[in-house]
Amino acid sequence: MREPSENAQLALLLEVAGTPKPGNVDRRREYDDLRFEHFLAGAVGARRGFDLAATGTQIGRAFERGVAGMAEQTAGNTQFGALLLLTPLVSAAATDRLSPEGCAAIVETTTVADACDFYRAFDHVDVAVDDPPADLDAFDVRRGSAAVGAIREEGVTLADVMDWAEARDGVAAEWTNGFERSFEAATWLEGAATDRSIGRRTSNVFLRLLAEEPDTFVVTRNGREIAAEASQRAQEVLDGEADPDALADEFVRRDVNPGTTADLTAAALFIALERGLEV
Amino acid sequence: MREPSENAQLALLLEVAGTPKPGNVDRRREYDDLRFEHFLAGAVGARRGFDLAATGTQIGRAFERGVAGMAEQTAGNTQFGALLLLTPLVSAAATDRLSPEGCAAIVETTTVADACDFYRAFDHVDVAVDDPPADLDAFDVRRGSAAVGAIREEGVTLADVMDWAEARDGVAAEWTNGFERSFEAATWLEGAATDRSIGRRTSNVFLRLLAEEPDTFVVTRNGREIAAEASQRAQEVLDGEADPDALADEFVRRDVNPGTTADLTAAALFIALERGLEV
Repeated sequence: MREPSENAQLALLLEVAGTPKPGNVDRRREYDDLRFEHFLAGAVGARRGFDLAATGTQIGRAFERGVAGMAEQTAGNTQFGALLLLTPLVSAAATDRLSPEGCAAIVETTTVADACDFYRAFDHVDVAVDDPPADLDAFDVRRGSAAVGAIREEGVTLADVMDWAEARDGVAAEWTNGFERSFEAATWLEGAATDRSIGRRTSNVFLRLLAEEPDTFVVTRNGREIAAEASQRAQEVLDGEADPDALADEFVRRDVNPGTTADLTAAALFIALERGLEV
Repeated sequence: MREPSENAQLALLLEVAGTPKPGNVDRRREYDDLRFEHFLAGAVGARRGFDLAATGTQIGRAFERGVAGMAEQTAGNTQFGALLLLTPLVSAAATDRLSPEGCAAIVETTTVADACDFYRAFDHVDVAVDDPPADLDAFDVRRGSAAVGAIREEGVTLADVMDWAEARDGVAAEWTNGFERSFEAATWLEGAATDRSIGRRTSNVFLRLLAEEPDTFVVTRNGREIAAEASQRAQEVLDGEADPDALADEFVRRDVNPGTTADLTAAALFIALERGLEV
């Protein structure tokens, strides 16, 4: 049987392989400076963090080490958000608490040290994020380790950081709601068992997640209007009114990359693998 | 910097992602019962063996554990031959001996225990191999752990087993010649640095290896004539006289799968990564 850290790595690989996932790098599509091979290398390096999370290292530290490993390729940020979801999920699975309640308990017990390590992770890669509200400027994640002093002074935990971000970041929202969408999407993967190809199931789950809610990474990079359009177009594919491959080609051309939805898809794949989804 | 066990895992992933590799599973092609996702899961599980080889565990044991991990997916044998090449290469890299001489030294010092573990690895998966010569019937690898008694009785080392097989198995031949083709193909990967895409470089190296020598896995499964044809057709692609994608589609249709050439490609990728090939 695969260990949780192995399933987390496999989830990253199955996510990027799943096709078509309109706007994402997948088996058939890539960007000039963000290619399939960068995601493979990212998944290899991320394993360091998963191994730590599985063996009791604090979430913040395990995440930061995973991001450092992920970043050992030339394209920069490939799976930052996915690691932020998978690290607590691996910790939950390794301690027999892979449930919304178990994950909520892990989030609640995060510390100031976890928050400091989370900020340190931003030293390894550039991550596209919105400006924080003015009163939280000292805690802008883009400050990276330079924000650690302020974090310590104010006694901010990693759960606090996620509370601040939940309204504008779909990954942070999972942290504050017991990984609700990740667990729900995992049941979709399990339910689609008549189609043996995990690549196609992954594509379907990605489209459902995207149709359900605007992707916050697209909001940040392309604006609200295009994010709303992306969700609507995904729904058209699900309704059989549009061709998924044509949409995938179009979104790559327009650089509309629903990365947060991909992160959620990876989290759902992990949960489904832990529950016995066969590869 | 990536560790040797990480580079070995990445080599497996880059190998299967490289396209087109006529007859192999790759990013764009798969068989109904042998799909891209099975190779991803195989690479995840194989890491167990690489981690052991990198930390001083004997080659035979590390290989057997790697195969056991690789086999934790539903398609059976995905990367057996690649693991047989990569395991000693990881051991060589981890002890600063990644050279033909260093690898030859590792082969020379294999023991009877290594041979026993090598046979045990065949308990985990079905591997397509030829019948052994009549006088070596007791040592047919397909006996798996049932051959361990005979191995011990005769004091057979893993180097001996490879000597027996070198004439009809391209992976065993690497063991007995200092991994000559693997090291040579690594220089081809490094030399192609003008093309940033490792996927295309991988495809080119695969074709050169296939054109250079008949694939022994194709010999075993499809016969000498088709193996010779596969090499000739690969040369035609290299000469610009044939379309690689059309050839890839044709070989998948005909079930002509040059698996040994893929194993050598993975070994070459590992060596090139260890020497600094950037991803």
